[in-house]
Amino acid sequence: VSATETSGVVTLLSDFGSEDPFVGVMKGVILTGAPLARLIDVTHAVPPQDVELAGFFLSASFAWFPRGSVHLAVVDPGVGSERKALAVRASGHYFLAPDNGLLSRVLETDAGFEARAIDSERLGLGVPSRTFHGRDVFAPTAARLVSGAVRFEALGALSTPLRNAPGPAPSSDSGRIVAVDHFGNLISDLRLESGETRALAVEIGGRRARVVGTYADGGAGECIALVSSFGTLEIAVRDGNAARLLALGRGAPIRLLRGGSP
Amino acid sequence: VSATETSGVVTLLSDFGSEDPFVGVMKGVILTGAPLARLIDVTHAVPPQDVELAGFFLSASFAWFPRGSVHLAVVDPGVGSERKALAVRASGHYFLAPDNGLLSRVLETDAGFEARAIDSERLGLGVPSRTFHGRDVFAPTAARLVSGAVRFEALGALSTPLRNAPGPAPSSDSGRIVAVDHFGNLISDLRLESGETRALAVEIGGRRARVVGTYADGGAGECIALVSSFGTLEIAVRDGNAARLLALGRGAPIRLLRGGSP
Amino acid sequence: VSATETSGVVTLLSDFGSEDPFVGVMKGVILTGAPLARLIDVTHAVPPQDVELAGFFLSASFAWFPRGSVHLAVVDPGVGSERKALAVRASGHYFLAPDNGLLSRVLETDAGFEARAIDSERLGLGVPSRTFHGRDVFAPTAARLVSGAVRFEALGALSTPLRNAPGPAPSSDSGRIVAVDHFGNLISDLRLESGETRALAVEIGGRRARVVGTYADGGAGECIALVSSFGTLEIAVRDGNAARLLALGRGAPIRLLRGGSP
Repeated sequence: VSATETSGVVTLLSDFGSEDPFVGVMKGVILTGAPLARLIDVTHAVPPQDVELAGFFLSASFAWFPRGSVHLAVVDPGVGSERKALAVRASGHYFLAPDNGLLSRVLETDAGFEARAIDSERLGLGVPSRTFHGRDVFAPTAARLVSGAVRFEALGALSTPLRNAPGPAPSSDSGRIVAVDHFGNLISDLRLESGETRALAVEIGGRRARVVGTYADGGAGECIALVSSFGTLEIAVRDGNAARLLALGRGAPIRLLRGGSP
Repeated sequence: VSATETSGVVTLLSDFGSEDPFVGVMKGVILTGAPLARLIDVTHAVPPQDVELAGFFLSASFAWFPRGSVHLAVVDPGVGSERKALAVRASGHYFLAPDNGLLSRVLETDAGFEARAIDSERLGLGVPSRTFHGRDVFAPTAARLVSGAVRFEALGALSTPLRNAPGPAPSSDSGRIVAVDHFGNLISDLRLESGETRALAVEIGGRRARVVGTYADGGAGECIALVSSFGTLEIAVRDGNAARLLALGRGAPIRLLRGGSP
Repeated sequence: VSATETSGVVTLLSDFGSEDPFVGVMKGVILTGAPLARLIDVTHAVPPQDVELAGFFLSASFAWFPRGSVHLAVVDPGVGSERKALAVRASGHYFLAPDNGLLSRVLETDAGFEARAIDSERLGLGVPSRTFHGRDVFAPTAARLVSGAVRFEALGALSTPLRNAPGPAPSSDSGRIVAVDHFGNLISDLRLESGETRALAVEIGGRRARVVGTYADGGAGECIALVSSFGTLEIAVRDGNAARLLALGRGAPIRLLRGGSP
């Protein structure tokens, strides 16, 4: 793993919502230490303490940002306990997150990742509060890293991240729903081999859905499957809300049917 | 139509909501191609596939941005079908949107507009996904345009945009509700001649509402009409929610009563 | 009070929500006048016309931004009436807000504050609309101030701000709930002396809650009290929603119990 120059971009992902001033405060801390940083929200609407969904969103989005970006992700039920604060370099990007498994999917993208336990004392961060490490640990660390004031290797000692078993790994034929998007589409963790979309269908919730190329290929109200914006198969209903129509959500199993017949 | 220098600003408008990483991903793509672009959200809370409301919001907001800004608007029920991706120069601004009528109201502001069909191949954008042209077509095109890497004329061939008939055009005396804002105010498409606010009233939902200068001119709970922040007449209830009180929404007709008597 | 150099940062706080283009339009106006300004949202989800909560959020967040930042806060039930538009310099920061008491808590942080009534005519702002001073008065004033085009002293004549009596001031032993955060935690205005967390409890809603160091110190489902991210005591339920569980909200009284026994 060699050094990666920072891009000047810091992304933010959390379960803080947008009603309170918490996200703004983190940005204020970053700009105080790194006045030229570019701050981009990924989302702050992760359901409270949903570490798994945060990890899925992060792993699906980071690579679209410039190489060398710093990705700050705070879903942190264990804030104030003994859990470590992590800094990770993987796949040409930097990640700052609590050591609670949030980064598991990111680590899978790069076997040569390097992880360090953020050393608040060494970085001169002062004594953090016990309730808001996004502001007191992760934001000032992001500022030091993105501005070049501190090199990644100097953020703390090498550390072995906690990795969550993300449930049964998807096989080539079966997986599960890992997210429901804003349009009610059911996003699975099932990947298709490239060019494999013909004569395929999926089974979900006792129904059969054709694999098609895009939404417009479905009939009105038809339940269809297609490659989602996350790169995995999703279940959609043309001009409708699949999650509501099928009464399904995260965890629901999905199975690929080859040859086009059930 | 002469060339317009870009302002460095890209605005984003969509129906993507804020729960998912989609808006962040579009911004990542823009910053990858145009590291110095300034990215401003107009709104991402347009109801799913509501092309008409997106067009109203865009037409009402673009002129408040610096001349030469690039406005990316993605409400795209036809993504992945044969519909074109448009780049338009009008009224001193640039617009990128699917060719589905979204830009109809913007085109009305400048008879001398120029429209081009974005040529992904010519721009080297690669083969886009069939579900997320915001990321694969519009964002990288915005990056090329705002950074000056590609001139507007080089984005693709001249094209004739699809224009939606926006329902009955408002006359000088009657119109309809086109939006309901966050405060429950009913926004119409009816414009007053300047200086015409005296001795006027409107009829809506079987009620009569005085035209006043500002919210504070209404009595407590009174239903009033005034020039909205969009420049058209709106119906409001002082310290209340007009949409809820009148049980009215988009499409409701509104009629101007001159002389102050019904 | 001496001059403070601006930081280039403008923060925005309002009750405009995120469905409409209003916040984007304010940012467009700021960037038109100050192309290099850094724009950061504090929140736009203040309940409509809730001046008090806006003032609490602003006072709790501004100090985390770089010294010399410009904080624009628009919760403005009296827009279009005779109320003044204020510019204030206090605690090394600048504030722009309607003169309706919103800045009361900010003014408490600095007895040496200076307040001026924004003089639209002198600043060449044109005749503002009577419904949207965020766009027509505060945003262009922010642009002039943050860009250095106009010095603070030149924004208008000295003025005495309206200050709201914020209810009974918290004593060292009792206070009230002033906000409910995204996680359902009940935020009070009661401050602990530093190092005073041992052998303490609070009484709220007829219950007794231990004062602990962090969320993880509570038992499952236990109602606990701790120093919040706002710096004051909050009531939380581990892995739960305190506001819902206790059926309490803003205004609820809270009392400190010393010695650990009720």
